[in-house]
Amino acid sequence: MPDPSLTRVKRLPDKARTDRQILNGILDAGMVAHVGTVDGEYPVVIPVAYARQDDQFLIHGSAASRLFTLLAAGSPACATVTILDGLVLARSLFESSMNYRSAMIFGTFTLLEGDFELRALHTITEHLMPGRWNDARQPTLQELKATYTLAMNITEWSVKVGEGDPDDNPADLHTVQGRDLWAGVVPINSSYGVPIPDPHVPQETPIPPYVQKWRV
Amino acid sequence: MPDPSLTRVKRLPDKARTDRQILNGILDAGMVAHVGTVDGEYPVVIPVAYARQDDQFLIHGSAASRLFTLLAAGSPACATVTILDGLVLARSLFESSMNYRSAMIFGTFTLLEGDFELRALHTITEHLMPGRWNDARQPTLQELKATYTLAMNITEWSVKVGEGDPDDNPADLHTVQGRDLWAGVVPINSSYGVPIPDPHVPQETPIPPYVQKWRV
Repeated sequence: MPDPSLTRVKRLPDKARTDRQILNGILDAGMVAHVGTVDGEYPVVIPVAYARQDDQFLIHGSAASRLFTLLAAGSPACATVTILDGLVLARSLFESSMNYRSAMIFGTFTLLEGDFELRALHTITEHLMPGRWNDARQPTLQELKATYTLAMNITEWSVKVGEGDPDDNPADLHTVQGRDLWAGVVPINSSYGVPIPDPHVPQETPIPPYVQKWRV
Repeated sequence: MPDPSLTRVKRLPDKARTDRQILNGILDAGMVAHVGTVDGEYPVVIPVAYARQDDQFLIHGSAASRLFTLLAAGSPACATVTILDGLVLARSLFESSMNYRSAMIFGTFTLLEGDFELRALHTITEHLMPGRWNDARQPTLQELKATYTLAMNITEWSVKVGEGDPDDNPADLHTVQGRDLWAGVVPINSSYGVPIPDPHVPQETPIPPYVQKWRV
């Protein structure tokens, strides 16, 4: 297991939360995880689609991928999910920062097979594209063979949340360079755009109702 | 240096680009990088603010942070920047995926000091908050001492871009489970919300014009 000191945030204790519900909230709100592992002595960090299923963190990728092969073989991993919520414009550059929610999970992945794999793929699809699983063409055995579906138990983890107003020094609060300076938060939001049908979709085919319900 | 095979994407050659301009475009469009390093034998991946300055990849963080201390000491690193552009709803679950742009940079960081540090902090601030540097209170010597500003040369890197329509099998194009199935891309967009002043900003203080110009 990793150095346990890494599973707590010591530097900014007010940004550290230990509540498992906060972890679950971050994992359930994100869409892309950055998964790091070690190849030889070098770190590699790749973006992957993921989902949480109870106490498991799930990813899937090509069985031909070097990284997924390393992960499937039990190479130590760290999966980080970050949601950027806004820019924090403090009066000092030093206190200027970002509001964000970030979750890190440490451990090793195991390969899922049979019904466990299918259930995990269902969970990942429904996390990213709720309603799509039953509508789309199901995976064939050959497609499942080409896919590595991996699970990591969520046991070693940390979360870090930056939120709220700038944390300026009292001395900076009123005048900066002899004048009032605007300070605060500029929120950053994600949203879905208008769905774009591919060229083979017959014109009368409606956008599925489940897609119309998606909100980031 | 890392295994050179990692710096090219072999599995999906149509998603691999070698053009340096595409790399620069991704780095200049992103706001958060996920930086991985190795602590003992375990990978750690942290989200950080960053900027590109010509051929250098810049980050900054607390000198008291274990991770920044490791990075400053030359621990091998991988920095990955990912921009999620949309969900790709193929007719088969197997071909369903995401459109995204991702850049990976491999190497080691070096600590910047004096004018080099100040210039890098300026670059990071202006990347994330264009116009803010000259308006805000400048860093003191003590604040600079508490900050590690690190640079990695952009020499070993790869980019991966997924874009456009689903890549369904011809056999899936027309009927899925006996009917037409909508397929296409659901775009994901980022945007700034309405700036929220902190409680100490006098009511008449305007939102700075440079903030009003920001577009993600």
